Amino acid sequence: MTSGVSSIELRVRYAETDQMGIAHHANYVIWCEDARTAHLRSSGISYRELEQRGLFLVVVEVQVRYRAAARYDDLLRIDCWVRERNRRRIIFGYAVHRAEDHSLLATAQTALIALDSNRVLGSLPPHVLDHLAPVADPVRV
Amino acid sequence: MTSGVSSIELRVRYAETDQMGIAHHANYVIWCEDARTAHLRSSGISYRELEQRGLFLVVVEVQVRYRAAARYDDLLRIDCWVRERNRRRIIFGYAVHRAEDHSLLATAQTALIALDSNRVLGSLPPHVLDHLAPVADPVRV
Amino acid sequence: MTSGVSSIELRVRYAETDQMGIAHHANYVIWCEDARTAHLRSSGISYRELEQRGLFLVVVEVQVRYRAAARYDDLLRIDCWVRERNRRRIIFGYAVHRAEDHSLLATAQTALIALDSNRVLGSLPPHVLDHLAPVADPVRV
Amino acid sequence: MTSGVSSIELRVRYAETDQMGIAHHANYVIWCEDARTAHLRSSGISYRELEQRGLFLVVVEVQVRYRAAARYDDLLRIDCWVRERNRRRIIFGYAVHRAEDHSLLATAQTALIALDSNRVLGSLPPHVLDHLAPVADPVRV
Repeated sequence: MTSGVSSIELRVRYAETDQMGIAHHANYVIWCEDARTAHLRSSGISYRELEQRGLFLVVVEVQVRYRAAARYDDLLRIDCWVRERNRRRIIFGYAVHRAEDHSLLATAQTALIALDSNRVLGSLPPHVLDHLAPVADPVRV
Repeated sequence: MTSGVSSIELRVRYAETDQMGIAHHANYVIWCEDARTAHLRSSGISYRELEQRGLFLVVVEVQVRYRAAARYDDLLRIDCWVRERNRRRIIFGYAVHRAEDHSLLATAQTALIALDSNRVLGSLPPHVLDHLAPVADPVRV
Repeated sequence: MTSGVSSIELRVRYAETDQMGIAHHANYVIWCEDARTAHLRSSGISYRELEQRGLFLVVVEVQVRYRAAARYDDLLRIDCWVRERNRRRIIFGYAVHRAEDHSLLATAQTALIALDSNRVLGSLPPHVLDHLAPVADPVRV
Repeated sequence: MTSGVSSIELRVRYAETDQMGIAHHANYVIWCEDARTAHLRSSGISYRELEQRGLFLVVVEVQVRYRAAARYDDLLRIDCWVRERNRRRIIFGYAVHRAEDHSLLATAQTALIALDSNRVLGSLPPHVLDHLAPVADPVRV
């Protein structure tokens, strides 16, 4: 991947709406996780395989800023990229857009640490870090 | 427990509503699971401990009939009981009521089988079966 | 659409797994709803527009049979079709397959009724019914 | 309420766990919302009634710090309080504890704004603000 920013598309599910008529804000955390899995995959890393080999990436911080509402059946584009990383911690950035009009609905960031299969804090192995070079934020987070 | 029917109470969460202004129908499946855990507990069985000892109860069938809508902040009462059981399979029944006016919102049943820690089909052990005597349905499921 | 069966593909999200290491059974109800929305769309009906014009399709019955587990990151194919319909009620059928090996993971059916914007039971309008001809079950539900 | 900090208790649901064997991190956002509804209620405000009168409190920012994992069937205590508020914006703070051993699992804050029934930005009415006096953080957020 040249740009260092990857994207997924998804449609807002009916079950994800709330009685305000918009997508409930907790879903953005789940969508970002989806985008992160896809970003790892497009960076040559299968998170499923990482876990099978005993490496767990655990979310220790989530921050989301909501700018405009997503609605049922909206097609969304979620961009994901690495903001910072060292041996202990990776920070991913996210931008949620409505695909139709390219409007920015939300930005987010999450910090993850590495645990081994005994759930003990470990280091991110070089073969993972090498694939996750930080890039400049494509939008202000 | 004398009656063989146990109950939990819960309030409909905002995140559980959808844009129709009612609790989304998938949540009833989750609420029934909560009521089942509580029914096991009140029958002297900790499902958490069952899993730790390598016995998994896996849902193989779910059936829900929706009669009236639950709304945000409604206090619900979920009744749970055993409808049938043998060494291979337990069928639980459920009734969801609005606590305020006792109206029946839904009925449900789920069938569960036992798997061991290798996810191989097993028998329900006597110490579990003995605590789970079937009772007559308190409402029509 | 000639066949009367439409399909969507989706990947099992991390948030959809449970501690048994499989997709939690309540998610199938949500996935079926996704497949139903897509089936309506491919039949020429936008459910979003139906609601905007004051017609709500409400689930009154759900039945799911689980045959094999779906796991994190599995690519699934959900087929959806109309089993029966009359002016009062439509029954949709569903089959959930793992895309990779075509194995059948679950089958389901849901019954829906039509409500108007005052949430009063109504008839399904001809322009909807005409687009939703029943077909023979592609798999045993 | 004298202290300005209110609490709810809830048990981690099976459906809320993920394959890491812990409660998925997105659920904390939902639990905080539950605690906020309860905090409003204990402050003399029914959020359900606010919405019925055309006032919507919309989440514009969420921040969660995860310190330790919650597990299936854990009884949790969620504290909620007002950190800051003015006519445009309220910031709530949250602390999630495991009830059994009082360990702190997570802290969070959310910022909310007021929208009217046309989804236009409005002011928080005095009768709401008066009931929501800020207090000092009981734990570091």
